[in-house]
Amino acid sequence: MVQAIVEGVGAFAAGEFAPLNRIGDLEGAKLENNIVRLPDGYNAAYDQYVAQGWNAIASPQEFGGQGLPFTLACNVIENLGAANMAFTLLPMLSVGAIDAVENHGNDEQKSVYLPKLVSGEWSGTMNLTEPQAGSDVGALRSTATPIESGDHAGKYLINGQKIYITWGEHELSKNIIHLVLARLPGAPEGTRGISLFIVPKYHVNDDGSLGSKNDLRCVSLEHKLGINASPTCVMSYGDNGECIGELIGEENRGLAAMFTMMNNARINVGSQGVQIAERALQQAAYYAKDRVQSARAGSPDRAPVAIIEHPDVRRMLLRMKSLTEAMRALLYYTTGQVDRGTLGDAAAGARGDVLVPMIKAWGTDTGIDVASIGVQIHGGMGFVEETGAAQHYRDARIAPIYEGTNGIQAADLVTRKLGLENGEVYARLMADIAQAAADEPALASLAQDCAAIAEWMRETASLDDKLAGSVPFCTMSAVAVAGWQMLLQKRAVESGEAPSLAAIKPVTAQFFIDHVVPEAAGLKASATAGSDIFYALTTDQLAG
Amino acid sequence: MVQAIVEGVGAFAAGEFAPLNRIGDLEGAKLENNIVRLPDGYNAAYDQYVAQGWNAIASPQEFGGQGLPFTLACNVIENLGAANMAFTLLPMLSVGAIDAVENHGNDEQKSVYLPKLVSGEWSGTMNLTEPQAGSDVGALRSTATPIESGDHAGKYLINGQKIYITWGEHELSKNIIHLVLARLPGAPEGTRGISLFIVPKYHVNDDGSLGSKNDLRCVSLEHKLGINASPTCVMSYGDNGECIGELIGEENRGLAAMFTMMNNARINVGSQGVQIAERALQQAAYYAKDRVQSARAGSPDRAPVAIIEHPDVRRMLLRMKSLTEAMRALLYYTTGQVDRGTLGDAAAGARGDVLVPMIKAWGTDTGIDVASIGVQIHGGMGFVEETGAAQHYRDARIAPIYEGTNGIQAADLVTRKLGLENGEVYARLMADIAQAAADEPALASLAQDCAAIAEWMRETASLDDKLAGSVPFCTMSAVAVAGWQMLLQKRAVESGEAPSLAAIKPVTAQFFIDHVVPEAAGLKASATAGSDIFYALTTDQLAG
Repeated sequence: MVQAIVEGVGAFAAGEFAPLNRIGDLEGAKLENNIVRLPDGYNAAYDQYVAQGWNAIASPQEFGGQGLPFTLACNVIENLGAANMAFTLLPMLSVGAIDAVENHGNDEQKSVYLPKLVSGEWSGTMNLTEPQAGSDVGALRSTATPIESGDHAGKYLINGQKIYITWGEHELSKNIIHLVLARLPGAPEGTRGISLFIVPKYHVNDDGSLGSKNDLRCVSLEHKLGINASPTCVMSYGDNGECIGELIGEENRGLAAMFTMMNNARINVGSQGVQIAERALQQAAYYAKDRVQSARAGSPDRAPVAIIEHPDVRRMLLRMKSLTEAMRALLYYTTGQVDRGTLGDAAAGARGDVLVPMIKAWGTDTGIDVASIGVQIHGGMGFVEETGAAQHYRDARIAPIYEGTNGIQAADLVTRKLGLENGEVYARLMADIAQAAADEPALASLAQDCAAIAEWMRETASLDDKLAGSVPFCTMSAVAVAGWQMLLQKRAVESGEAPSLAAIKPVTAQFFIDHVVPEAAGLKASATAGSDIFYALTTDQLAG
Repeated sequence: MVQAIVEGVGAFAAGEFAPLNRIGDLEGAKLENNIVRLPDGYNAAYDQYVAQGWNAIASPQEFGGQGLPFTLACNVIENLGAANMAFTLLPMLSVGAIDAVENHGNDEQKSVYLPKLVSGEWSGTMNLTEPQAGSDVGALRSTATPIESGDHAGKYLINGQKIYITWGEHELSKNIIHLVLARLPGAPEGTRGISLFIVPKYHVNDDGSLGSKNDLRCVSLEHKLGINASPTCVMSYGDNGECIGELIGEENRGLAAMFTMMNNARINVGSQGVQIAERALQQAAYYAKDRVQSARAGSPDRAPVAIIEHPDVRRMLLRMKSLTEAMRALLYYTTGQVDRGTLGDAAAGARGDVLVPMIKAWGTDTGIDVASIGVQIHGGMGFVEETGAAQHYRDARIAPIYEGTNGIQAADLVTRKLGLENGEVYARLMADIAQAAADEPALASLAQDCAAIAEWMRETASLDDKLAGSVPFCTMSAVAVAGWQMLLQKRAVESGEAPSLAAIKPVTAQFFIDHVVPEAAGLKASATAGSDIFYALTTDQLAG
């Protein structure tokens, strides 16, 4: 069944989502008379997506889902996103809304919202950011006022403006369920005074049919560097004082609820690194096989060859391929740990928590690197938009920013995740790697370096020193885990598993261990240098 | 006088070129009825540029130039390019045409073309690339047929199509002098059968006035990822069989003449890395000082601060600043060697030759890295085009591609430049670094690694192995030289020179040596791993 799903979504993604990628980039989402329009084909493709049941993979069977592992749902997202990253943000964020309602909604909320969210008939959004509240979510000022009487008694009047709301308005789904963070009257300041609300675009009648439009609207769309088919909305709630929402979960506990969702969303953003890398790799490889230019250096007959024959082009392609496979290995090792955690394996769950910032940060940084190499392989053609290689370079750039910047991921790793079980969760991970890599000294040494840095960070380093080294440390950690997983895959293949990979995996794995791992080791000095030098210049000297 | 020029061009660039950067990106160059139009303001700014004499810095005084060092001309280009990289390509490529006419033209050609090219009244282009002849210039098929009789006897009929011609058509200058590579009848195949021709947009009458239009036209403009204000033209020569050109230099020696120009052009493309990095740094620093978000981690009062106060933002800014200064240090060390070479110092000239691929490749790669960090510092705003940070990330991407891809630069370093004086030119450079860095072990060790790899490449490695390691080796070499120059600057400042830099340079230099140099050392494994692994997969396995 797993194979059928993976192959099925691959065919669906290639057939329905991929052909819309370029037109989505060129024409983008447009706001016309308060309605967000997508290019031709997006509506039909989304309808097909819903009809074929791709939205329901990991959702509870009780509400129409298939109850399959998170890992499999991630693979569906990876396939769709490689075909069309901007489009795939729509179902990706709906998963967050489903998680929120499933885990924090009451029975009535579940019965009203889950079936249609699970099928994809309705979509969902996450509304955190406000102009003054970006990474600092606690600074948000949107309000929710209890309605004391009348038809909506027990619900809330929502008021405020939210920015960067992905797929905040569109007409592909029949309703949009906005999950909005706002403050109740008298709520504590900061992150402890934030509650979560369900705010539907159209009110839902008691019989489940759609009622009148709620008092909310998309004020404008951002003009962005990439993912142009994904409408990034400025949303206004309650312009006329009539925006109705309902509380989900406990009062003032909204941020915790939102973070549940965010953990999985971060994994899927890390997956976007894999997605864009895979697409860029396929395109560059196709070009390099096709484009004939110059003879191989030193060739006696001086006959021009396809550029894939030239050593440096081959280096670039093998690097793209090896990095893509290594990111994917880290991605599914992470989702596997999350699934095991969900099934009750606490150790795996904790390890999954440690891995999330790694796949998010390193996966998205590496997505850019691979997309950039893809442009380079095309030469001058790569800089011409019609080629399509440049779109990946543009699309990839958002992923290190949203769902918590990569700096915030690294801070999460060194301030929270390193501390799990007094450091044992991280330490055991690196010990496993060092042990498995006994015959790969560069990888074993990297894992030992990571373990030593982690110990220094936990026991000796100041908070500033930890944060100063957090990003290079996060990269080193991710490369160590990815290298380990590549090594395990290589060994599995060499012992006869997956014969179709027998010729390839040992090469891509060895390249990663011999080339990429030593580069990560070069970050050790940065990870441990401390913060003093960053504050040696005054703000004006640094910015002057 | 140097100070007056540097300050003068800085003010001019900020006042006239910088304000046109965003509109040039938004509106771009447009082809309408065979005429290329630039956004409002470009014509007037170019007129000012010519009127103030900025085009004439390094050109011979005999033809109206100021006869000043190349280094100073590069500084003019750096300042203009930081203000507006796309616009600055116009004068930058005209310099190439001036060099070609000055070094290879006969007296008549010099007297006809140089005065107006030097003043900037006319501009120049370089025409190498054809659809089937990119990096492999020798594959070009444009032809030049001698005219036996009539008005143009002794000249040539030019026929062919050229692509990627930067500023190939526009109306900012009164005439455009195209330098076109083409083949004479019966010329040898490949690079030894290519001649260089002067092909003016408008014919020049005997009295120097402009005559009728030549038979050439811009067929189309590329729709590009960046540098939108720079028209990238498909040029067609001789559609009606009446395109007249004149030979410059010797028959079949055109490529050598073109390479003279290209050496300096490569340095100025490396400078584009500095330009874009400086602009991105200024913008990110301004934003980081202004944007208030979250308290410092661990701060007792939990008061929000400007994000420049957070350790990881500070790390990113210091990295941007240190990389920018280090690129600039390498740039002007290179131009200084070139100037000394021109004045007769052969050792300096040879060292300059070794440095050119380093500044071109590492400078342009690093320009992308710095621009990307600049986007990241802006968070979500960085992905919104109105902010302007994304433009730098897009503009920067062309520089590793044109004037010889960075792969070709690295190949030039390991196949040609390493061999100069039996390897002594490169070896002396690294020996100088290792000696100067006796008290900076990481830098000294990097220089020693570079020297050892160079020796291996020259004496042991196969051609494929050299090429396989060429790109990481080129990066290592560039970082070693840049680190050395930063160290020398730091020492100069510490000994009392340049008091205005006393507080800053020691910090940026030490950051480079402590953080960036060890990262480059991490490339050693890649530089020396050889090519076998690249050919361990078949083409289909690699590209499948």
